[in-house]
Amino acid sequence: MKRGAATLPLAAGLLFLGPWSVLLAQTPPPKPLTSAEVLAASTAADWRALDPADTLYLDLAAGRVVIELSRVHAPQHVAAIKTLARARYWDGLAINRLQDNFVAQWGDPENKKPLPKLAPMPPEFSRAIAPDVPFSALPDADGWARQVGFTQGMAAARSATEQWLVHCYGALGVGRDNEPESGLGNELYVVIGQSPRQLDGNVAVVGKVWRGMELLASLPRGTAGGLGLYEKVEQRVPIRSLRLASDVPAAERTTLEVLREDREVFARFVESRRNRRDGWYVKPAGHIDVCNIAVPVREVAASGP
Amino acid sequence: MKRGAATLPLAAGLLFLGPWSVLLAQTPPPKPLTSAEVLAASTAADWRALDPADTLYLDLAAGRVVIELSRVHAPQHVAAIKTLARARYWDGLAINRLQDNFVAQWGDPENKKPLPKLAPMPPEFSRAIAPDVPFSALPDADGWARQVGFTQGMAAARSATEQWLVHCYGALGVGRDNEPESGLGNELYVVIGQSPRQLDGNVAVVGKVWRGMELLASLPRGTAGGLGLYEKVEQRVPIRSLRLASDVPAAERTTLEVLREDREVFARFVESRRNRRDGWYVKPAGHIDVCNIAVPVREVAASGP
Repeated sequence: MKRGAATLPLAAGLLFLGPWSVLLAQTPPPKPLTSAEVLAASTAADWRALDPADTLYLDLAAGRVVIELSRVHAPQHVAAIKTLARARYWDGLAINRLQDNFVAQWGDPENKKPLPKLAPMPPEFSRAIAPDVPFSALPDADGWARQVGFTQGMAAARSATEQWLVHCYGALGVGRDNEPESGLGNELYVVIGQSPRQLDGNVAVVGKVWRGMELLASLPRGTAGGLGLYEKVEQRVPIRSLRLASDVPAAERTTLEVLREDREVFARFVESRRNRRDGWYVKPAGHIDVCNIAVPVREVAASGP
Repeated sequence: MKRGAATLPLAAGLLFLGPWSVLLAQTPPPKPLTSAEVLAASTAADWRALDPADTLYLDLAAGRVVIELSRVHAPQHVAAIKTLARARYWDGLAINRLQDNFVAQWGDPENKKPLPKLAPMPPEFSRAIAPDVPFSALPDADGWARQVGFTQGMAAARSATEQWLVHCYGALGVGRDNEPESGLGNELYVVIGQSPRQLDGNVAVVGKVWRGMELLASLPRGTAGGLGLYEKVEQRVPIRSLRLASDVPAAERTTLEVLREDREVFARFVESRRNRRDGWYVKPAGHIDVCNIAVPVREVAASGP
């Protein structure tokens, strides 16, 4: 019944053997586990703390959205975003676009607010594979890319030579005009619906929302321009502040840890999502899509400054 | 770069040649078209009117959600849902579950409201393939099923012998307890995020939302039980009425037409989504996922009784 499970994962494993496949082969789980059982058996070393220097807090009246940036995948756009955050560029601007089953977007649609000086940037739609670029391959087939997997807990894909972050729920991307070089980092969007993978390779994905997606996804949809833009300025959702976590006093930080994809427990977690062992399921899928894996995240007590 | 585009669609076309593949082979588009260009060239015969006898109106304070039922795929659950709608079972009940990136669900969580008499039902998780069961195959590979495509404009999948509706954004499913036969049709859910395809074959998908998804997807998320249940009864979203369109006066109906998947224009529309020709895109994907195709729907003037 499952084409993918029968043939493609094996071929993928042989052609693109990654650390994950190795781990799976070395230590097959003694018995099928539920996701809860897998996580209950995790240790401190299986979790990675977000680096405050690479973490954004988008503070709205409804609460905080916590976003991690990927310097590895979009160093120049990430640097620009940090410059913008430090300049308090977005504070007082607003979320102005909510397109159903697509994106929530914020910025300055009237281009009134002066931008701090930003260096010209290449598109950063993808980057070259290199030994120091982390990637844990998923053995499951993907229709959009030769290979998919995870890097920093973010869904990613690879060709023979390039690697890029893909558009799953919660992905943070850099809005741009028609010119590939036109994305400066001041217009940002987050995916709020079915993964729009057709955008992969067409835009710079620069990070991922780890907490607060429900605050973005539950906003009223806009109706203007066929793009989900709010018709009226007063419908826009004000941004109280968008700051780097490292610029926020320690007592005001949200301290999150993410399950590390290079640990055996991650492979076991994925298997628990690929073939559900909860009592409710009668038919395990035998497959998982990279965008159907919600990488575990947890809040921990802040360690202080 | 794209594994799927290179090999799998060809194999799929050879193994499971459907009407769609035939149409594509007979009449390749003279030049690549945008989706807007494809639809602008459609004719009246390319569209199918929803049958009021198979259409539900979920009326909320915020507006109307229009849902089509599939008698072909779940005849007994659809019959039960019609019985429940005619008994005004849901009127005054509420949407009580909003799980982010998963489902909106309604019913009677306290089981207080008497159910009309319903016959026992088989699970209807899938049905046998038969000559009179429509299916237009998508040539693109799918990780979850041997073959995917469309039936009544709804995303569907096939094994060698069975066919079922799949969990894409907007799919309507029948909630159930752990026993496969426990879904009566009184608890209904709609997919509001990334397609939870792991549910396929585990639950009866019985229809699709054609209009008003934004009314469900923008509701506040619930926080109880790890299931998105609203904590408090007053958070629930009241259902003004849930009626069959055929039980609603003609002047109060919402008259929709859906692009027919057995028409050449549909194949051209899919190709316009598979390889975007808008000026914005620099890299056509060469692939499309069955859940990434928003089947076109339009409102027309009611013809009246």
